Amino acid sequence: MSLTRIAFIGFGVVGQGLAEILVEQKEELSERYGFNFQVVAISDTMKGSVYDENGLHLQKILDIVKATGKINDYPEGIKGWDSQKTITETNANLIVEVSWTDIKTGEPAISHVKSAIKCYKHIVMTNKGPIALAVRELLAMAANNGVQVRFEGTVLSGTPAINLGLNNLAGVQISKVAGIVNGTTNYILTEMEKGLDYTSALKQAQELGYAEADPTADVEGFDALGKIVILANVVMNANLTKDEVSCQGITKITPQDIETAKQEGNRWKLIASAEIQSDGSVKAAVKPEKLPLEHPLAAVSGPINALTYTTKHLGEVTIIGPGAGRAATGYALLTDILDIHRTITRP
Amino acid sequence: MSLTRIAFIGFGVVGQGLAEILVEQKEELSERYGFNFQVVAISDTMKGSVYDENGLHLQKILDIVKATGKINDYPEGIKGWDSQKTITETNANLIVEVSWTDIKTGEPAISHVKSAIKCYKHIVMTNKGPIALAVRELLAMAANNGVQVRFEGTVLSGTPAINLGLNNLAGVQISKVAGIVNGTTNYILTEMEKGLDYTSALKQAQELGYAEADPTADVEGFDALGKIVILANVVMNANLTKDEVSCQGITKITPQDIETAKQEGNRWKLIASAEIQSDGSVKAAVKPEKLPLEHPLAAVSGPINALTYTTKHLGEVTIIGPGAGRAATGYALLTDILDIHRTITRP
Repeated sequence: MSLTRIAFIGFGVVGQGLAEILVEQKEELSERYGFNFQVVAISDTMKGSVYDENGLHLQKILDIVKATGKINDYPEGIKGWDSQKTITETNANLIVEVSWTDIKTGEPAISHVKSAIKCYKHIVMTNKGPIALAVRELLAMAANNGVQVRFEGTVLSGTPAINLGLNNLAGVQISKVAGIVNGTTNYILTEMEKGLDYTSALKQAQELGYAEADPTADVEGFDALGKIVILANVVMNANLTKDEVSCQGITKITPQDIETAKQEGNRWKLIASAEIQSDGSVKAAVKPEKLPLEHPLAAVSGPINALTYTTKHLGEVTIIGPGAGRAATGYALLTDILDIHRTITRP
Repeated sequence: MSLTRIAFIGFGVVGQGLAEILVEQKEELSERYGFNFQVVAISDTMKGSVYDENGLHLQKILDIVKATGKINDYPEGIKGWDSQKTITETNANLIVEVSWTDIKTGEPAISHVKSAIKCYKHIVMTNKGPIALAVRELLAMAANNGVQVRFEGTVLSGTPAINLGLNNLAGVQISKVAGIVNGTTNYILTEMEKGLDYTSALKQAQELGYAEADPTADVEGFDALGKIVILANVVMNANLTKDEVSCQGITKITPQDIETAKQEGNRWKLIASAEIQSDGSVKAAVKPEKLPLEHPLAAVSGPINALTYTTKHLGEVTIIGPGAGRAATGYALLTDILDIHRTITRP
């Protein structure tokens, strides 16, 4: 396809972040990567929806959403199509799935992905839920229909953790992946090293927007759990479910634990890991670990994330970068879109 | 192409390294990546050449080369074709260019690449010379003829530095790339930190095989210079030649310099960098820099390499991994081959 026609399912922070990047870089994307696009539809449960088969004026929509929050105020196009109709009946050939989704059931994102695959449309997404719950099924369906499902943003946001493991390290025989995949807990641990207790460090993380009002998913390790399941299943070809992975967060780490580690020349990090066992199965875990200060992951501080692949041909390969943020997550979608474009159009 | 037919131009350490990986992983590559191949030809100026349009028995050739060093001892196939004839007249559709090449002129590798492009064959290579000298010309020719020229192994060997910057970070607006791209000098500096003087550290590096008998290219920074020119021209779209880049090696660093840096909380590293200037041009340099110990590159020690991309949407993204070695460089070729396969066959 020489023209990519995009439909947004959901238009919250991440979707708007991508839309802003697309507007800003439209010319560069065309000149440098030969990537030409139109956004033909946007459908959001709260903000309304619009479809124009000849393309929407994306900056105008961004302005309207900022001003009134109502996509229906856009003066042209067809209004009122819900997400399913937008996926199946518009002329979009690539779906950006960034709807609000229940992390426990993965819905409605899983249904959105299935609908898109059924009508032979590529999908990019950043929702962790559907991928942690159903990635093998979705990838198999997509392969059958000759379309791509991409989800770089589900782990380390735009930092290319998944595409690194899946494509750049293809054939390298990965035996283990381990890293710091949750920025909130890494920030809290870094601040505790500086002398704060857990409660004060958490409060500071909340004030800075790194932690949510209910921090359970981060501090109990559940967020990291979802990410390591994705990495194991996608990069290491495992078939794990969340309840097969032991999970321990950072809530029980005391200032005394921090101090003891320091005296030993160690540092606490919340490590998510998955490793191939001698019987060929993959075992994964999330738990706080004391790393020696010389360890590459020990130096990763604050909200930064990092992942180390242990491989046969390359030894250890580590990637370090941001794990969250509006621009970084919006960019994760762009990198997937450009890679789909590249694999479709390259000779 | 569902069957990749490979011709090796050159069959030294790197070529044999790739051949061993291909033999060992043949089944996995087919099952997991749908990658099926035959090696149909090998042509080496010293060892001789063989061509069989129906495929060679690769393990048998590896055994023969190990035993007698003479490819002509292989019992079947057509003998005696030189590199040009092997590129242009065999039924290979992918050329592995690993010939012995003069780093100053880039020959004969540049001619090999041009011949391959002219007959519409993809090329993977690890020779730095041709890429540092002529990458823009070669990529333009390749694009015109609808084939791919890939060279991941020219920087950080198999650690995916180039494909990371070029593909995974596509569209992210890279403003700077800087890193440790020469393992020999990094090993020497690490040993000098431990108390050795320059001469003893160099001698130790030579004994371990990290440095060559004539270490000039490494210790004067010329190797790093070639690599930063490649990164600037490929990833940042610059058009630099080597003589436009200032280059200073590590030969003048004294134990006193090392000690002073230590007292300041710093560490010497040989840093190659390229940065976009306010007028849009790209300026590159190779020189020893004192980095604070907290800097991510300061922690990279021994023969390990690392590269940090400074980007608009992701801030800093760093990759750390091996920069040399038989398996790592052989693997660099495999990752390029698999990515060509992926971009050709993915929906």
